[in-house]
Amino acid sequence: MPNENQINKKISDSVNPDYYIKKGKLNNADEYADGIKKGDRSTLSRAITLIESTKNEYRELGQAILEKCYGLAGHSIRIGITGVPGVGKSTFIEKFGMHLIEQGKKVAVLAIDPSSSITKGSILGDKTRMETLAVHENAYVRPTPAAGILGGVAGKTREAILLCEASGFDIIIVETVGVGQSETSVKSMVDFFLLLMLAGAGDELQGIKRGIMETADMIVINKADGENIHNANRARLEYQQALSLFPPQPSEWKAPVKTASSLDNTGIREVWDVLKQYHNQVTQNGFFANNRKNQSVQWLHEAIGFQLKHQFYSRPNVKNNLDRLEKEILSGKISPPFAASELMNPSVQE
Amino acid sequence: MPNENQINKKISDSVNPDYYIKKGKLNNADEYADGIKKGDRSTLSRAITLIESTKNEYRELGQAILEKCYGLAGHSIRIGITGVPGVGKSTFIEKFGMHLIEQGKKVAVLAIDPSSSITKGSILGDKTRMETLAVHENAYVRPTPAAGILGGVAGKTREAILLCEASGFDIIIVETVGVGQSETSVKSMVDFFLLLMLAGAGDELQGIKRGIMETADMIVINKADGENIHNANRARLEYQQALSLFPPQPSEWKAPVKTASSLDNTGIREVWDVLKQYHNQVTQNGFFANNRKNQSVQWLHEAIGFQLKHQFYSRPNVKNNLDRLEKEILSGKISPPFAASELMNPSVQE
Repeated sequence: MPNENQINKKISDSVNPDYYIKKGKLNNADEYADGIKKGDRSTLSRAITLIESTKNEYRELGQAILEKCYGLAGHSIRIGITGVPGVGKSTFIEKFGMHLIEQGKKVAVLAIDPSSSITKGSILGDKTRMETLAVHENAYVRPTPAAGILGGVAGKTREAILLCEASGFDIIIVETVGVGQSETSVKSMVDFFLLLMLAGAGDELQGIKRGIMETADMIVINKADGENIHNANRARLEYQQALSLFPPQPSEWKAPVKTASSLDNTGIREVWDVLKQYHNQVTQNGFFANNRKNQSVQWLHEAIGFQLKHQFYSRPNVKNNLDRLEKEILSGKISPPFAASELMNPSVQE
Repeated sequence: MPNENQINKKISDSVNPDYYIKKGKLNNADEYADGIKKGDRSTLSRAITLIESTKNEYRELGQAILEKCYGLAGHSIRIGITGVPGVGKSTFIEKFGMHLIEQGKKVAVLAIDPSSSITKGSILGDKTRMETLAVHENAYVRPTPAAGILGGVAGKTREAILLCEASGFDIIIVETVGVGQSETSVKSMVDFFLLLMLAGAGDELQGIKRGIMETADMIVINKADGENIHNANRARLEYQQALSLFPPQPSEWKAPVKTASSLDNTGIREVWDVLKQYHNQVTQNGFFANNRKNQSVQWLHEAIGFQLKHQFYSRPNVKNNLDRLEKEILSGKISPPFAASELMNPSVQE
């Protein structure tokens, strides 16, 4: 049996563009795009890795692939699913994903895990947790370690969504841990935002970031099985009451609260029923198309901001001066906008 | 009696740096800084106007004034107050501000109103609404129209806070309408965030942005008077219950829900009591200082982002190409990151 290092090496190779480019297997964007359009999952994986890479030549190749696939993308329902560690996201997504496949859907799962990286075995771990789904021919499970493979960066989930869509997946699930900034940005790239919670506002809930609960399109009280059913039902009523106090969503959708159990396989079908209702309503009232449009424009301006900042913070002198200026701000010597102006000054930058 | 145009002209002159610079009254940053440190409110007003200006020479003068005042700033409690139009913010702030003055405090109110501009009489209106507070020698009321005076921009509230502090004000209230982006950013510049609400989740509440309620340090059900007292008390209990379902704040503070009436002058003193408790707790657990420090660093990076974008979007060719590229994105021709890269290309920029 191979040891963990050998397994990780193998997984790393399977998504490593260097490995394939050197072997002469895939050299240009057209070959990648063709493979993606044919539904080849390992080509899809490698293309996502290229886009996530910090190496310019890889990123440019990834970008070229994206452009060739862009016109084919967009024909899916994008679902964000968040919740604290321990809420049972992976098991829920496995059951939910399998239910969708039974309905004839092709399901892609993009998991954003800020705490993982490939060397820590996270990709292995996630694949193992969704073992039925991960190996199904109509599914694709892709963890996106925030620290990244090959020094890649997070924040390429939108690109990954588009590539999955071009590859024929019609349900895209973006899984994220509800403890950081990620779930706010996930809301800006999905059509439907589902929050998984547990009954009993104990320690397990401490991780969820404030301001998230109000933005959910649905809350599911998970692990509603065994002795927990009573508590889960009480929590459902309490959260439903709390949500009713919130102002309406721009979609005019009233977020329902339901219970579910991956153990008993209950409540899973109901989530899909709710999602279909939602999709009906927001397609009819125009919110779906309008929201997608706004998200695209928002993405453009985020990409501009990201690229401007990336260029700026890459300059060595900016990095060095930043430390000094931060200290001067905190000691009350100079104000933040003055420090910013000083960094903008070409003589400081070069 | 002067007509509205004459009144607006007079108010506009009183904050117009052109008017004063031409008259030779205030020419350099030292003069402004001296006036501010002495507590002269019209000098303070003009300095804030300089900072808000889009004219480079004014902004640079404003920046120079800020640097001279920066070391003196920081010694206040900064309170954000938000709520939808009609919730009674101005009247509440007037009563609350007068109570603080009775406690020996000097109170500055910075009102951010995205819908107003000086020509629509908003400054006049706001001053009229807080008529007792606005004319008190220990208070300063400053509306910041988003559209701006002299083509000024919003987003200079942090600078205005610092100038007010340098001028000796020890309570700074930032008032904002809870309908846009502004209340999220206000949270990032204050020590304590108070949300005013009304009993009965009717039409009046529709304006509040989702995700705001969870971030409040205190909710006050306003207009708890007359026949409304019963409803206000019921709303208080409901919101208190809803807040208890939320995860804890980073400050470890449990946000209380109270009722108040500006008409009966009830609940006003209690807000100050809660604020003192909060200040005690977060000073002791270190959150206060830590939060201020994080806010300063965040401000630096926001200022960098703002200045980078300002430079970028000011280029005429970026403006022109932006429209075309947005259309191409929405028609599915190119992806947002590709459009961003194209705009970054120097040949497109020049």
